[in-house]
Amino acid sequence: MTLETISEVKAHGGVQGVYRHASAATGTDMVFSLFMPPEVERGEPIPVLWYLSGLTCSHANVTEKGEYRAACAEAGMIFVAPDTSPRGEGVPDDPEGAWDFGLGAGFYLDATQAPWDRHYKMASYIVDELPSLVADHFPIDRGRQGICGHSMGGHGALTLALKHPGRFASVSAFAPIVAPGQVPWGHKALGHYLGDDAGENGAAWRAHDAVALIEDGARVPELLVDIGTADPFLEQQLRPELLEAACADAGIALELRRQAGYDHSYYFISTFMADHVRWHAARLSRRA
Amino acid sequence: MTLETISEVKAHGGVQGVYRHASAATGTDMVFSLFMPPEVERGEPIPVLWYLSGLTCSHANVTEKGEYRAACAEAGMIFVAPDTSPRGEGVPDDPEGAWDFGLGAGFYLDATQAPWDRHYKMASYIVDELPSLVADHFPIDRGRQGICGHSMGGHGALTLALKHPGRFASVSAFAPIVAPGQVPWGHKALGHYLGDDAGENGAAWRAHDAVALIEDGARVPELLVDIGTADPFLEQQLRPELLEAACADAGIALELRRQAGYDHSYYFISTFMADHVRWHAARLSRRA
Repeated sequence: MTLETISEVKAHGGVQGVYRHASAATGTDMVFSLFMPPEVERGEPIPVLWYLSGLTCSHANVTEKGEYRAACAEAGMIFVAPDTSPRGEGVPDDPEGAWDFGLGAGFYLDATQAPWDRHYKMASYIVDELPSLVADHFPIDRGRQGICGHSMGGHGALTLALKHPGRFASVSAFAPIVAPGQVPWGHKALGHYLGDDAGENGAAWRAHDAVALIEDGARVPELLVDIGTADPFLEQQLRPELLEAACADAGIALELRRQAGYDHSYYFISTFMADHVRWHAARLSRRA
Repeated sequence: MTLETISEVKAHGGVQGVYRHASAATGTDMVFSLFMPPEVERGEPIPVLWYLSGLTCSHANVTEKGEYRAACAEAGMIFVAPDTSPRGEGVPDDPEGAWDFGLGAGFYLDATQAPWDRHYKMASYIVDELPSLVADHFPIDRGRQGICGHSMGGHGALTLALKHPGRFASVSAFAPIVAPGQVPWGHKALGHYLGDDAGENGAAWRAHDAVALIEDGARVPELLVDIGTADPFLEQQLRPELLEAACADAGIALELRRQAGYDHSYYFISTFMADHVRWHAARLSRRA
């Protein structure tokens, strides 16, 4: 598959790139950013951390504000930030232009309902197409992959790791949506993308809900989750206590850190990003 | 003087704020950002690092992309990022809307030529008004001030430190314009703001040119300057070799680091920002 280089800039001893490619999964062009640490010069495959962004974001938000490069350069880790939805001519958006659905809000699932089912195939894109593309062009070690994400991207990281056991050796999240089936953002998105949750669709909803997946038997070895206590979405949209209860029942080692005074922004994320990078690096230091 | 809080967000243990105030110097509202490290809780005055931004920037660029907070939190240093020009209704801009003059390009001097002389008073704003305002509202230690800047802001940091000996105990720059009197950006800006450099104006130009100031006897104890070797403005606009020669002749201890492969962007700045913060912190650890 062909990759177009939009930009490559030296940063923290490595290279921060932005790339575009035609996606078979979404039927659109897709853009992602990738940081290559100086470690690449040793000529060996490098562990990779996938970072899934939140509502309204593209690859650019974390690339500019995430403060991950110093830690990734030190750990010798590739950092990939995909977009959050298909974009471009013909891609449908929220009919009222709301920011919590449609463009910038793909929710990391494959939509089954028209008109969303044509382009909104973010699960296939993130799990299948993008890793193959990245592996074709960069020296990632597919045996050493971690995944993390923020808010909607935290939902993506948790659900994709739970649905693909063994794929990701480490999973973490910043302020994740842990139970979309029980909160307004999730009701709106799953309702449009998957249909209402009556009858058979109820199972589809549960397959894209981290808490429901854990309740239904899916497992990851451990989780690191940071939440800000001043996050305005904490009580209505994020509800970390639901993940806490599900992990307790399932015996999943969840390290849930309630960070006093932090909000939902990249000021929160960037504060704890180096922690997460190092946490992943410790778990990816050997091949799975 | 009254300060309006636009936002205050917890970050890296401290508080990243953005503030607005009416400026007597510029006759406009001005916005700046200020990071308060957790050190403030000890109740003692804190050293401050002034960061002057480059062409086209506002306070926001470094605040979002500068990666200074972790280092400032660790060093216990306040970081202030002012805007780069007056803005708002009635403030004249480049007649052709060019990005290298007018709005976002105040060059840290007081204009003497109409129509610029009404609002473009950035030297008075940065040196007199803003420090007083900040000292009224935040616990800065006025005996421990450092200054740094990028590109046009590097020019600002160098010239303001040279023109106000003893004010800044430490001075550094990223990719500074060191000799505006000898390069196109400077010719355009100084020509408009100060008038052409014939006759008496020649002295005005030299008073806003770091290399000329050093040649004319102004001194700072030492300088740290980083330059990227892939900076597209290096040869025509920045010309670090002129600063190198002037410092050598003057006996100023210049540490000029030519960073291989880096460009002019915040990817370059953020890579070396922590270095600069620590360099200033070492020099501001005791009262001047």
